[in-house]
Amino acid sequence: MTDFTLACPIPITDYPQVLLGHGSGGRLMHHLIESLFAPAFSNPALDERGDGAVLQLGSGRIAMTTDSYVVRPLFFPGGDIGTLAVNGTVNDLAMCGARPLYLSAGFILEEGLPMETLWRVVLSMRQAADAAGVTVVTGDTKVVDRGKGDGIFINTAGIGVIEHDVRLGPASVRPGDVIILNGDLGRHGMAIMAAREGLTFESDIESDCAPLAAPVLALLDARVEVHCLRDLTRGGLASSLVEIATTSGLQIQVRESDIPVREDVRGACEILGLDPMYVANEGRFVAFVAPQDAGRALDILGPEAVAIGEVQEERSGLVTLQSAIGANRIVDMLSGEQLPRIC
Amino acid sequence: MTDFTLACPIPITDYPQVLLGHGSGGRLMHHLIESLFAPAFSNPALDERGDGAVLQLGSGRIAMTTDSYVVRPLFFPGGDIGTLAVNGTVNDLAMCGARPLYLSAGFILEEGLPMETLWRVVLSMRQAADAAGVTVVTGDTKVVDRGKGDGIFINTAGIGVIEHDVRLGPASVRPGDVIILNGDLGRHGMAIMAAREGLTFESDIESDCAPLAAPVLALLDARVEVHCLRDLTRGGLASSLVEIATTSGLQIQVRESDIPVREDVRGACEILGLDPMYVANEGRFVAFVAPQDAGRALDILGPEAVAIGEVQEERSGLVTLQSAIGANRIVDMLSGEQLPRIC
Repeated sequence: MTDFTLACPIPITDYPQVLLGHGSGGRLMHHLIESLFAPAFSNPALDERGDGAVLQLGSGRIAMTTDSYVVRPLFFPGGDIGTLAVNGTVNDLAMCGARPLYLSAGFILEEGLPMETLWRVVLSMRQAADAAGVTVVTGDTKVVDRGKGDGIFINTAGIGVIEHDVRLGPASVRPGDVIILNGDLGRHGMAIMAAREGLTFESDIESDCAPLAAPVLALLDARVEVHCLRDLTRGGLASSLVEIATTSGLQIQVRESDIPVREDVRGACEILGLDPMYVANEGRFVAFVAPQDAGRALDILGPEAVAIGEVQEERSGLVTLQSAIGANRIVDMLSGEQLPRIC
Repeated sequence: MTDFTLACPIPITDYPQVLLGHGSGGRLMHHLIESLFAPAFSNPALDERGDGAVLQLGSGRIAMTTDSYVVRPLFFPGGDIGTLAVNGTVNDLAMCGARPLYLSAGFILEEGLPMETLWRVVLSMRQAADAAGVTVVTGDTKVVDRGKGDGIFINTAGIGVIEHDVRLGPASVRPGDVIILNGDLGRHGMAIMAAREGLTFESDIESDCAPLAAPVLALLDARVEVHCLRDLTRGGLASSLVEIATTSGLQIQVRESDIPVREDVRGACEILGLDPMYVANEGRFVAFVAPQDAGRALDILGPEAVAIGEVQEERSGLVTLQSAIGANRIVDMLSGEQLPRIC
């Protein structure tokens, strides 16, 4: 039950104000969700803490999810805020095992935004929606005064239908599960940073922004025993794994040498002092798969997919990273803000 | 079919940039929707132009809708951005004839927002959700840098189930339909203006912000023959009626003397030079009801509901207002922005 006293559950001595880090997908955001949003809104669907909510509707199950997009700049190599707003929400539905169907789109525009910019973004959304097989069925537009917004913010919410009899989530993760990653890490974050800072790397790094419903549904259609899915957006691979380990109570071990990072991305990360394990992706996910199905899962996901680790027997709730030379270190959630406004 | 050329359909000579009026619910917003969003996203559900989309899902029908809330100030007499964010979306579902079930909540917070303010808003949302019988099942938080937002923006999307075999919308409106309004006009807009400008009126004007699903479902449960429902938010009664008249192609006549406006609200409107017909409400709707059921509809909606006019035989697509002395004038859509950031 919610206690409707007026005392804010985050003491003023801890965080009197919202910080940029409260939106960055790491420890601060986790704290805000667990201390403030979760107790206020608590209900069974929300309390599952999935990428979206799984809901019974009539005789079937659906997934519902939402994300706001505040990425800066609006256009970057490999995409723009429009492609992100469609694919990000499509991917959260996919992580629930749902076939994405319908999106809503809410625009918050800043007075003075060039009409041409809005048109380019809207066209990108339509093209991304067509590519992902979803339809934008309802929308809303608000305009805020100059200096009270930042060009365009977009919220999309999505619903999809769950056609498979699966129960995905950290609670379903089992010791022995193989952790499969569908491709190389770090491109989205580095593409944004390059566009934002005007950096030129040796090669062009494009965002990996892509819809993930097709590969996920291919796994489920093939009856691969999938236990948990998570896309690797804010906070990157590290934060997603830590969240799953913490929630499941199990220990997760991953091998650094098996985690693909392109050379140019690794170089860009080094220049900027960033760890690719924490950099946001928009077309990458991990699947926790029963060991007997790992080979089939890799075949289905294609040549870029790799097994990067396993779930251990230990009930430590920790993530350990085995380095190339064999040493183990504990992986922590992103603390503070690494890359604000990345999505 | 969408033409994916890069030419923006709103010529740069007309509106090179987005104006505040593009979000105010009147003629400019209508132009933006019809010229830019509609052709880009065109699909059967969206093309119905309802307060939400009506979608087939499995063997049943659902409604889906979204709204972003950018109201300023965040707290006002009778509510706050949180109550608005819940009731506004609940009401759009109700206008589709749906029983609202689930909401998503997307927060865009400005760095530096007092944590206590966020907590008060979140509690308001929970209380409003409980009162309206809906559950906030999924959410998202983004933080933007200081000066790139305005405290809190909230997007809610909602889904509801359509349990009645009705087809609501301008296309279902028939000559002879009685137009029923569920109460007095103008309180939300005037409450916001008073809070924003620090005005003190003779009496306190509180927002009419309230959930409307219960009265709508009471009409449908009683098998009142309802043809169209519309809540009277941005642009007020006038803009809603003009939109329905334009879309249906029929003429609508309303009687000024039958439209209830509280004396203090009328006085406040006069001071500010506003017409209550155009002022936003957050707990008011019109129902277009078959004439033989109008009396029952009024009984169900209670003593504050009034019949304010009828749909005529003429196919002019116009709204006419009969003044107290009997003269008729044509009612136009709100042009420009009357009250920006009212919701």
